[in-house]
Amino acid sequence: MIYFQCDYAEGAHPRILDALVKTNFEQTPGYGVDVHCQNACKLIQEKIGKSDARVHFLVGGTQTNLTVIASLLKPHQGVIGVDTGHISCHETGAIEATGHKVLQIPAEDGKLSSDKLQAFLKNYWADDTHEHIVEPGMVYISSPTEVGTVYTKKELESLKQICRKYQIPLFLDGARLGYGLASEENDVFWKDLPNLVDVFYIGGTKCGALFGEAVVFCDDQNLDRHFRPIMKQKGGMLAKGRLLGIQFETLFTEDLYEKITTQAVQEALRLRDAFKAKGFEFLVDSPTNQQFPILDRKSIETLSQKFAFMIWPDNGEEKLATRFCTSWATKSEQVDELIAEIQQL
Amino acid sequence: MIYFQCDYAEGAHPRILDALVKTNFEQTPGYGVDVHCQNACKLIQEKIGKSDARVHFLVGGTQTNLTVIASLLKPHQGVIGVDTGHISCHETGAIEATGHKVLQIPAEDGKLSSDKLQAFLKNYWADDTHEHIVEPGMVYISSPTEVGTVYTKKELESLKQICRKYQIPLFLDGARLGYGLASEENDVFWKDLPNLVDVFYIGGTKCGALFGEAVVFCDDQNLDRHFRPIMKQKGGMLAKGRLLGIQFETLFTEDLYEKITTQAVQEALRLRDAFKAKGFEFLVDSPTNQQFPILDRKSIETLSQKFAFMIWPDNGEEKLATRFCTSWATKSEQVDELIAEIQQL
Amino acid sequence: MIYFQCDYAEGAHPRILDALVKTNFEQTPGYGVDVHCQNACKLIQEKIGKSDARVHFLVGGTQTNLTVIASLLKPHQGVIGVDTGHISCHETGAIEATGHKVLQIPAEDGKLSSDKLQAFLKNYWADDTHEHIVEPGMVYISSPTEVGTVYTKKELESLKQICRKYQIPLFLDGARLGYGLASEENDVFWKDLPNLVDVFYIGGTKCGALFGEAVVFCDDQNLDRHFRPIMKQKGGMLAKGRLLGIQFETLFTEDLYEKITTQAVQEALRLRDAFKAKGFEFLVDSPTNQQFPILDRKSIETLSQKFAFMIWPDNGEEKLATRFCTSWATKSEQVDELIAEIQQL
Amino acid sequence: MIYFQCDYAEGAHPRILDALVKTNFEQTPGYGVDVHCQNACKLIQEKIGKSDARVHFLVGGTQTNLTVIASLLKPHQGVIGVDTGHISCHETGAIEATGHKVLQIPAEDGKLSSDKLQAFLKNYWADDTHEHIVEPGMVYISSPTEVGTVYTKKELESLKQICRKYQIPLFLDGARLGYGLASEENDVFWKDLPNLVDVFYIGGTKCGALFGEAVVFCDDQNLDRHFRPIMKQKGGMLAKGRLLGIQFETLFTEDLYEKITTQAVQEALRLRDAFKAKGFEFLVDSPTNQQFPILDRKSIETLSQKFAFMIWPDNGEEKLATRFCTSWATKSEQVDELIAEIQQL
Repeated sequence: MIYFQCDYAEGAHPRILDALVKTNFEQTPGYGVDVHCQNACKLIQEKIGKSDARVHFLVGGTQTNLTVIASLLKPHQGVIGVDTGHISCHETGAIEATGHKVLQIPAEDGKLSSDKLQAFLKNYWADDTHEHIVEPGMVYISSPTEVGTVYTKKELESLKQICRKYQIPLFLDGARLGYGLASEENDVFWKDLPNLVDVFYIGGTKCGALFGEAVVFCDDQNLDRHFRPIMKQKGGMLAKGRLLGIQFETLFTEDLYEKITTQAVQEALRLRDAFKAKGFEFLVDSPTNQQFPILDRKSIETLSQKFAFMIWPDNGEEKLATRFCTSWATKSEQVDELIAEIQQL
Repeated sequence: MIYFQCDYAEGAHPRILDALVKTNFEQTPGYGVDVHCQNACKLIQEKIGKSDARVHFLVGGTQTNLTVIASLLKPHQGVIGVDTGHISCHETGAIEATGHKVLQIPAEDGKLSSDKLQAFLKNYWADDTHEHIVEPGMVYISSPTEVGTVYTKKELESLKQICRKYQIPLFLDGARLGYGLASEENDVFWKDLPNLVDVFYIGGTKCGALFGEAVVFCDDQNLDRHFRPIMKQKGGMLAKGRLLGIQFETLFTEDLYEKITTQAVQEALRLRDAFKAKGFEFLVDSPTNQQFPILDRKSIETLSQKFAFMIWPDNGEEKLATRFCTSWATKSEQVDELIAEIQQL
Repeated sequence: MIYFQCDYAEGAHPRILDALVKTNFEQTPGYGVDVHCQNACKLIQEKIGKSDARVHFLVGGTQTNLTVIASLLKPHQGVIGVDTGHISCHETGAIEATGHKVLQIPAEDGKLSSDKLQAFLKNYWADDTHEHIVEPGMVYISSPTEVGTVYTKKELESLKQICRKYQIPLFLDGARLGYGLASEENDVFWKDLPNLVDVFYIGGTKCGALFGEAVVFCDDQNLDRHFRPIMKQKGGMLAKGRLLGIQFETLFTEDLYEKITTQAVQEALRLRDAFKAKGFEFLVDSPTNQQFPILDRKSIETLSQKFAFMIWPDNGEEKLATRFCTSWATKSEQVDELIAEIQQL
Repeated sequence: MIYFQCDYAEGAHPRILDALVKTNFEQTPGYGVDVHCQNACKLIQEKIGKSDARVHFLVGGTQTNLTVIASLLKPHQGVIGVDTGHISCHETGAIEATGHKVLQIPAEDGKLSSDKLQAFLKNYWADDTHEHIVEPGMVYISSPTEVGTVYTKKELESLKQICRKYQIPLFLDGARLGYGLASEENDVFWKDLPNLVDVFYIGGTKCGALFGEAVVFCDDQNLDRHFRPIMKQKGGMLAKGRLLGIQFETLFTEDLYEKITTQAVQEALRLRDAFKAKGFEFLVDSPTNQQFPILDRKSIETLSQKFAFMIWPDNGEEKLATRFCTSWATKSEQVDELIAEIQQL
């Protein structure tokens, strides 16, 4: 069985394991204040061209989302996100468990439209009963989105402008950031990010690391003032913090992060093309490492013999949406094998 | 200025004030374990024909909703409700502040359709990633709804049957219960309630009392086992609990509750007919004390000279939805005056 | 049975009921923005000599404590209070339920000593692992305390000075404020309060009202910026807010609040003297409306025939602490009757 | 500089890194349902002699404590623990942030005395105002404790008996479990644990792993019924769950866990003896890997030249408590070097 089910089916890029082995007996202070974390922070600052960005390392995505959001909101505020966003539907209510509502706006291909955002905020502040309504205190987006799409620079600029107007921070979940940067459609590069969002994170778990997400605060209001004690409180401060530092050091050395995610996206596009060539339609047109072909039941059954992939819950219809992911670990031969099978469907 | 803006613009029915004056120097234990609370509980048990119902008295609606819901859910669970439901949009995230998500289903005229509920629950349990999704742990409905509509007996039976199947409690917010019972379209009576829902509350604040909601647990699983300490924790246990007992004693003596809410509904229907006679349309067809005529800007301006009523936030359109409420305190002359004005629009 | 068990065994001062009756059919907007609340606010501002104090009205003490504290703390912060404080031990974890730890310091006769406070704060900031420890974000005290003692002006000045130094607000729970002001030992008067604390509340429930606490923000940092939506979220915003306004208007007209609490304290001191004259010792020397004589079991049994009072949980000892409360509603004849009984013990 | 500051200054035991390298390209499902987790679970079941124990793997200690406790308590309940316990003072209020109070009992050498526990529970239930007090819903202990002491079998039996009587679960934080098992004073062995506690965890982070704690539910009431969705909600479900499985597989193969913790304890006792030989006193008599000599300032200064260790916050006294930790990674030569220095103090 070959896994295309998700982008976290393997361990880590071998260079990361090498680095862990090499540094194993170094003695460092705990909790992320060691030299590896400092060095990783510096490499990230250089990459994004912002030497005063503050970087914090956490283990996983849900943990990162809940910690960032809980640290930014006041008790009566909620976070705006699209209905298909990870925090809206796939974190078992992690945000609500910190006391805050996710204010859901219907997504357009996984994205938050700036028109809808503007209308939502305007309506809130126009309503003179707004003391009775959750105040929108920040905006959450993910790019690539949960359905593989990527925000354009222009889209992010619009969102940022609206957030500025309403004086609320814009937070970008970059759990798959590398795959977005590697997309051919992408026009948002590392050095653009600090101008486009207030906080974002660079996904490690799905992009070559064993685990780890690097949260980057780019704002000039010291928004991460209380981030470390809140990390600790939420269970997100890793004792051996240097494990995170070492992994991001490795990923940000010799452009490893970009290289491996670019390779993954290229493999995904080969898959996409193979499905397209056979006339299959897609749930959404994704330029990144996740592909969502809509398959008939027979094709699903055939492919399931040798390959693992996600199938949407059975809704009684003849065709079901599916998800095939590549990752930094996907080998060309694995994709070749799948393509061969697709061609015979 | 005559108020039709809400159903809590005045104090309380005079008999309630009389009772408070009469009992004022009685000495009773605090926190709702006094004879008046016991007596009110008995009167409610008799009214609904269920001698083992457990009754708890709280001060207000948001407080009641958050206390009931927090007491019934496990940490990973949320409460299903319609998007126009009070807990979804008009309580400043009170439910989320207790750690739980409101799982919003689009309303149909303010109501939760049993088809949509069934589909929602089925989808949840069919999804094999459901550990990552908030588990639906109970269902919240309000009747009358926030737009004045009332559930039929058949609708409630369907909802209850689905809740039974999925073993989750059904909770009815009856902040305006009296106005629903008094509606001509209503076919759900006091003695039906224990068979149709697991928990409900009888609104006092909007139905003749100074304040107060009587929560009635009708389930046979002892669902209110921990309700009193949770009431205390959430700030909802009134020191002079007898104030609630005395008010509900009064409301449930000589059918005062029904009489005053019936009168209010009749006045509301007179208003409805007056608007209809002039050709105005309505946001929704409401048989209870809230009426939602859609008025042109000129009519709004004219009526606003002498009457207070709610106007939907300005959306740039020529016509805006409005809300006119009657209550137990509304006088026929006040309605006459408004009708006279409507007729001249 | 005559109740000395608590100071909330009766309804309200008759003038309050009169005012409720008189205003009953006035129509006002809900949620505390009516003229009565505005007027009560003005009367309180005048009383304390601070025309820019902001006043918010809530129903009960636990609700007030949790709302004020939740509105002032950041997620990683806790509130300092003594171990015998109401929030530490008698609110079923209401503060923790909002996510914050109560940082308990051992009380001295119910009070927080400034030395202990200073040491606590110094230790916290001296500890270089303090990211792992709850940050003290505010200080809670009550005066009179739960055991009837009253802070002197000098004590409050010391506490305030320390809070200033550490830039954290000082919050005074005045659930029984009137009884403290009326104590002969008291040297803190209305106009001192704004200089001594950042936020305090004036207890109504135990001092003549049916219910109600007036929270007064005296700080110059706009600390109540988000107080109203948080009140709503926590279930503490009363629909008919004017009921609170009317009650405080009455209490602050013609010095009613002072008159009735002074009378109560005088009756309490008569009780104290009667117990003292018979040689009984006291748990603490209280100059206010709560008295804590330590009684032998036989005396307890005798007095229990005709009087209700609190008895400390049985610890197997021969003598047990008890609590006798007077209140605005206590009649001299009731006290006479109890004294007569004491004299025969 | 040689680190004796903590037991998490290095990476992981080399065999763990080997295992991670060896399994790196295996493809497994995420979130802890892979074969490695299943295998690790089986090894743990065998080790403790309880084939129906349920095992869940988390990343760190604070995360584990908050997840277990939040999953076991009802909203109005708190967790009993000693004042020096990790959850009481070193997790930035992680438990309170889930809504629950830590009910602190003064420790005796880091331990919870069964007499004090019994008295606490008895008092709670004897108090007829207990609706107003946080209900003790479970008991938390750590062994070894935060000051290195270890519970005896008899002590645990007493605690368990009391918990049984009051029908509340007993939870043992075993962040340093291995070092306790390896202590010469210890009389609690693997197969005793299921009989002595309801839930415990086996610390990996401090005992040879890169990170990871294995939570073991031994109760027969299905207490972990909702554990997985709550893990997810709290951010504790690792995407590549197999990383935890692989580490615990390794630790529980060929008794690696016991071997490396035994070695660490022996080194610690050599340190202890060296300090004792020079006449230093200890904060507490610890038989495990943490030693707490009380040192004069000059000795502290001298040792600080070459060694890192924890020093208690400066309290102005001549002598200060310190902590020296050994770990699975401590080399005999490092200890030799420190001992040589001690001998010259």
